Amino acid sequence: MIVRDRPRGLQLFYILRGSVLPHIAWELAVCTGVAVLVTLTHGFVYQWKITLTTVPFTLIGLALAIFLGFRNNAAYDRYWEARKLWADLLHRSRSFAREVQTLLHFDAPAGPEDRDDPRHRMVMRTIAFASALRHELRCTDAKPDMRRLLSPDEAEAFAAARFRTDWLLRKQGEDLGAFLRARRIDAPVAADLDQTISAFAAVAAGCERIKYTPIPFPYTLLLHRTAWLYCFLLPFGLVDLVGFMTPFVVAIVAYTFFGLDALGDEIEEPFGTADNHLPLDALCREIEINLLEALGVKELPPRLKPVDGRLT
Amino acid sequence: MIVRDRPRGLQLFYILRGSVLPHIAWELAVCTGVAVLVTLTHGFVYQWKITLTTVPFTLIGLALAIFLGFRNNAAYDRYWEARKLWADLLHRSRSFAREVQTLLHFDAPAGPEDRDDPRHRMVMRTIAFASALRHELRCTDAKPDMRRLLSPDEAEAFAAARFRTDWLLRKQGEDLGAFLRARRIDAPVAADLDQTISAFAAVAAGCERIKYTPIPFPYTLLLHRTAWLYCFLLPFGLVDLVGFMTPFVVAIVAYTFFGLDALGDEIEEPFGTADNHLPLDALCREIEINLLEALGVKELPPRLKPVDGRLT
Amino acid sequence: MIVRDRPRGLQLFYILRGSVLPHIAWELAVCTGVAVLVTLTHGFVYQWKITLTTVPFTLIGLALAIFLGFRNNAAYDRYWEARKLWADLLHRSRSFAREVQTLLHFDAPAGPEDRDDPRHRMVMRTIAFASALRHELRCTDAKPDMRRLLSPDEAEAFAAARFRTDWLLRKQGEDLGAFLRARRIDAPVAADLDQTISAFAAVAAGCERIKYTPIPFPYTLLLHRTAWLYCFLLPFGLVDLVGFMTPFVVAIVAYTFFGLDALGDEIEEPFGTADNHLPLDALCREIEINLLEALGVKELPPRLKPVDGRLT
Amino acid sequence: MIVRDRPRGLQLFYILRGSVLPHIAWELAVCTGVAVLVTLTHGFVYQWKITLTTVPFTLIGLALAIFLGFRNNAAYDRYWEARKLWADLLHRSRSFAREVQTLLHFDAPAGPEDRDDPRHRMVMRTIAFASALRHELRCTDAKPDMRRLLSPDEAEAFAAARFRTDWLLRKQGEDLGAFLRARRIDAPVAADLDQTISAFAAVAAGCERIKYTPIPFPYTLLLHRTAWLYCFLLPFGLVDLVGFMTPFVVAIVAYTFFGLDALGDEIEEPFGTADNHLPLDALCREIEINLLEALGVKELPPRLKPVDGRLT
Amino acid sequence: MIVRDRPRGLQLFYILRGSVLPHIAWELAVCTGVAVLVTLTHGFVYQWKITLTTVPFTLIGLALAIFLGFRNNAAYDRYWEARKLWADLLHRSRSFAREVQTLLHFDAPAGPEDRDDPRHRMVMRTIAFASALRHELRCTDAKPDMRRLLSPDEAEAFAAARFRTDWLLRKQGEDLGAFLRARRIDAPVAADLDQTISAFAAVAAGCERIKYTPIPFPYTLLLHRTAWLYCFLLPFGLVDLVGFMTPFVVAIVAYTFFGLDALGDEIEEPFGTADNHLPLDALCREIEINLLEALGVKELPPRLKPVDGRLT
Repeated sequence: MIVRDRPRGLQLFYILRGSVLPHIAWELAVCTGVAVLVTLTHGFVYQWKITLTTVPFTLIGLALAIFLGFRNNAAYDRYWEARKLWADLLHRSRSFAREVQTLLHFDAPAGPEDRDDPRHRMVMRTIAFASALRHELRCTDAKPDMRRLLSPDEAEAFAAARFRTDWLLRKQGEDLGAFLRARRIDAPVAADLDQTISAFAAVAAGCERIKYTPIPFPYTLLLHRTAWLYCFLLPFGLVDLVGFMTPFVVAIVAYTFFGLDALGDEIEEPFGTADNHLPLDALCREIEINLLEALGVKELPPRLKPVDGRLT
Repeated sequence: MIVRDRPRGLQLFYILRGSVLPHIAWELAVCTGVAVLVTLTHGFVYQWKITLTTVPFTLIGLALAIFLGFRNNAAYDRYWEARKLWADLLHRSRSFAREVQTLLHFDAPAGPEDRDDPRHRMVMRTIAFASALRHELRCTDAKPDMRRLLSPDEAEAFAAARFRTDWLLRKQGEDLGAFLRARRIDAPVAADLDQTISAFAAVAAGCERIKYTPIPFPYTLLLHRTAWLYCFLLPFGLVDLVGFMTPFVVAIVAYTFFGLDALGDEIEEPFGTADNHLPLDALCREIEINLLEALGVKELPPRLKPVDGRLT
Repeated sequence: MIVRDRPRGLQLFYILRGSVLPHIAWELAVCTGVAVLVTLTHGFVYQWKITLTTVPFTLIGLALAIFLGFRNNAAYDRYWEARKLWADLLHRSRSFAREVQTLLHFDAPAGPEDRDDPRHRMVMRTIAFASALRHELRCTDAKPDMRRLLSPDEAEAFAAARFRTDWLLRKQGEDLGAFLRARRIDAPVAADLDQTISAFAAVAAGCERIKYTPIPFPYTLLLHRTAWLYCFLLPFGLVDLVGFMTPFVVAIVAYTFFGLDALGDEIEEPFGTADNHLPLDALCREIEINLLEALGVKELPPRLKPVDGRLT
Repeated sequence: MIVRDRPRGLQLFYILRGSVLPHIAWELAVCTGVAVLVTLTHGFVYQWKITLTTVPFTLIGLALAIFLGFRNNAAYDRYWEARKLWADLLHRSRSFAREVQTLLHFDAPAGPEDRDDPRHRMVMRTIAFASALRHELRCTDAKPDMRRLLSPDEAEAFAAARFRTDWLLRKQGEDLGAFLRARRIDAPVAADLDQTISAFAAVAAGCERIKYTPIPFPYTLLLHRTAWLYCFLLPFGLVDLVGFMTPFVVAIVAYTFFGLDALGDEIEEPFGTADNHLPLDALCREIEINLLEALGVKELPPRLKPVDGRLT
Repeated sequence: MIVRDRPRGLQLFYILRGSVLPHIAWELAVCTGVAVLVTLTHGFVYQWKITLTTVPFTLIGLALAIFLGFRNNAAYDRYWEARKLWADLLHRSRSFAREVQTLLHFDAPAGPEDRDDPRHRMVMRTIAFASALRHELRCTDAKPDMRRLLSPDEAEAFAAARFRTDWLLRKQGEDLGAFLRARRIDAPVAADLDQTISAFAAVAAGCERIKYTPIPFPYTLLLHRTAWLYCFLLPFGLVDLVGFMTPFVVAIVAYTFFGLDALGDEIEEPFGTADNHLPLDALCREIEINLLEALGVKELPPRLKPVDGRLT
């Protein structure tokens, strides 16, 4: 995620960090090159004058506007829903830790040193869940984090599981069931905690849904083809009207269309580590600090800071 | 579902897999053919010169844009809601298996061999529910899968039932009620599990709603008629302006309009096996592997892989 | 609801069933008639030549597009929300029957002949609720159905009640309370069933909201007035540009505008029996068959089939 | 709320009841007046000919369309959300009365004469809640209604409270707590009723949110200024094109823009007594009749009928 | 938040309070200045006549409309969601106080002087939660308020915590757990209260999400660059058409585009103290008065009033 102030004045025009310009440099260059050629030949291809006028662009523009607007909204909705799911994960983690620490029949909450207390394990597993989900979404190796957060036995079993986030929730359920059978928790409160665990499952399923089901492929294809044809043909429509300004106008139009498209591409699946993806590292650290504090740990790790205006 | 990388460069223009082009080839050919004829006759039909200019197309285009935009949004919303329902089914299945395995008054969770343990039956029935829903939505035969997942008696009763997914949930309820009366489960936890069962019923009703209630028919009719008239008349409006480029422009315009329309048609009811439909087979397999793992099965079936870039 | 395949080819143009054409025939005829007159007089009214050009239509078209798009979205949202409410009713009915049959402290579920068993009554009342809601929404007589579904005493009391659907839910509550006081049901499960009953109340209130609160009247008025003025004046703007094609263009434009408007009118309050209204009869039958099956009835009534492509 | 059939034919043009015309008469007159002046002077202001052409209006129209569309959607969303909140209030009231009457440990429900039965008080307070909320939203005096619905002591305490709707809910909570401590209600059912009471609090907070937080003021300002400038300058752009039809076209355009704007203004905060506001009186009466029926009252007050096509 | 009546007549044009004009004065001045220069030179830059016509502006305008419309909707959705979260906080606070005061096993609710009663502490902490959240969102110092609302010990511990709002909720959980273990509350009711506490956590996570995750930066950049280029080049496109009116038209267009943009900027993160931000001070005071009343306090602090038409 790009974290920076809004640029002012001329700065607006030379900023590249967080801009989509680098992603569409190639498209822009091709379109502008074609426009230069068309301007030099005054729209002639060999001896044929290609007359298009601007009317076809208004007609195609109609459909293109629908495509761009739709895809942009769909991509942003996915981005924002992903962010909501992680906010959900944050507050469910907080609530689960609070419930585990306060509503069971114990004299005191579990402390940072009570590694054998199931409540300690349950809180640490909640931290591990966020971390495991992040690693799954980013296709990175979760094992080092798990060795840090889980007991050696559990870390090993975790690595052997196929559905790792669900495995963690099943372990939470086992401890909860044990408390229930030992009458350490009242049944209505156990049902309450179980619903919190189910909410974690819902977050994981929501993130998987966004990651593994892209916007249907033909939208991308239809949009790309139309945008390319549009920008490719545009110089033929403009050259008789605006003369030597043609490449300039084509460049601006191509910048807006391809820029919006590239941005949609980037935020459609926002769990990676690109500039505009969600800062999952920072969110996991946030959950970790918060839950360690709930366990009574005094020496809390620091928050992650943006590096070069960018938070991963 | 089409699973592939975004095409680059010229590849963009000759890709057919996942494109809507094959679906609209006929429409495109007719429109372009008409445009060629009109170009050859310079807009004369017998001795009558049909003068339309481009103004009517701007006016009709207004309404057409509303139709296309609306229908496209409505179709995509249905597609995405269907995907959400299946994500819901996934995490409810996981949660139900977790609850059954951990929150009852038993010493240990049911193992892969405890075929007579009601908990084993309940988990297997959860797998069967997803499978039965898929078969119902795709109008395929559920019996082979049921014979594999249910006991012979249940598979037979399943086949005899009218509302088969609901029959499975009623069986789940019966086992839950038996546990409750045998005091194997606390009443608040039973209410909690019952709500999970009700969530399965909600998923089934949501999918049936999308399958059996299409977007009102007149939208389709109104949109089709207008799009056809538009593309049919367009050459008369363009021929005096862009001359021999007329068929080319008409082809592009028709491609965008009919393409968006055909795509809407396809994803409006996304439970089939067309290219852009949801990968229900893969999702059911996902649920199956996951729940078998929750039962402690070691030899898990493999995930489904896309075949030729396509996941069913 | 119109249930039919998508028409192909020329069929597209002569289909009337499910089309909005019959509803707007009068409007179309008037507008086209005016256009013919204007074409014949070349835009002269007595000796005054009315020059409008197409510019005003672009300006007014802007506002008209906002109106049409807005109203269409609002109407479809109401239609789809109504459908969602009925899907909700369907799965709540299934869940309520399942809960009543399985979670109470009885040895066996109520059978089809146990007419004195309160559980039998509760399931039948659930069928009756759907039917009563349908009759209320369609302003038809619920009594014959109630006599069929309820005991004679209840059918009479039902007919005497002011808020009939709510009366049915209060009766459900009474039986539930009696079970609770007789310790035939655990209190947490009773709370769970009570929430299901409250969900029925929410469905009824949602349907009443859609039925009794139309889209604010001025929207209709503003939209109609503008659409009429637009189509009425359009020939004066077009006649100098497209000559004898004027009536044809006006007819197409009027068809799209009035068609979209008439469709919005129809689906705004989708509980009637018009072509594009929801098939409440079929949905009620669906609930009835399903719940009779849950009661163990063997001879189930058949599903409703579309008659002439139309399901009521 | 305007309750009337859709006008047909010429009636469409002279209807005023429910129209926004009276609200925008002044704006329309000014704009049309300016247009008449400009037409008479052929666009000259002293010796300067103001040439605008229609191009600026297309450019400004773009932004204006975004403003109008946005504000209209936002206003209607508020209107419809307010209606949803009141539908929520309706079904929660029904459910609360049902729960109070059926799920407690009493032999019979409270009757119309059991004024000392806390259940009677709780049902009456539910009616009072709807009424008090209506009076709060309309800034009218709730005391007469409260004297009618509450006991004299409570009516007095109600009048002395700062947060009156919340005061009523606290009283409901007190009676619920007393039942709980007297073991007249099972704890899970009490939690269930408490959630219903919390739902009332949510409705009140939702209504207050809509009432006290308007759409940010600059939207109104930006929209108004732009609409005024647009309509004011429009005659200069049109006079050379459409001649003596200029005032007529300006009047239509101004009617659509100011009409949509005035309508948004009216429904943005729909709790008043203007034509298109919600019929809170009728809804409160509906709740009152329904809950009196739930108390067994035989002589129910009549429903409110629209007066002159208008329901308050 | 600006609280004022809708301006009428000429007042509309000179209002500045609440207008976005002051925020965009610089942009407006630059664009208008350029337009004046271009008008004076008739579009010549040295000896080169820059011919643009208005066609490019229609094409770019298409993309610009999508950007502006999208960003505006996204910003307003954030604003309105933030307001909803605070309405949620308001009614959850009311409900939590009601539950604490009525549903526990005590003879009477806690009074204003019972400072040692945990129920008194719990209500005061609810007030403190709203206040702490406000201070966190506005990056102001919460300590003075906490010293006023919490006991000295708790105020100190609060100041030492990293996640202060969550710390308050954990303290609520501790008191709730103590009541549960002392059998002062029934377990189902405790689960109910715990869910209310979790709802507070959800509100805090929602507000943090809006505060710390802006709309992706490239949207801002893309929109700004396009808007600047558009307004900068516009005079070259207009000067041949509208002559000396060019600066005037450019000023209006720039006002609408930059105005909408500046407004989106302001309400995108609505927790500050700018004119159009949410009145968090007033909302916190509202919660405070309401909960003090629930504690039986007689001398309630006054509501906050708008100062100079502005509520913070």
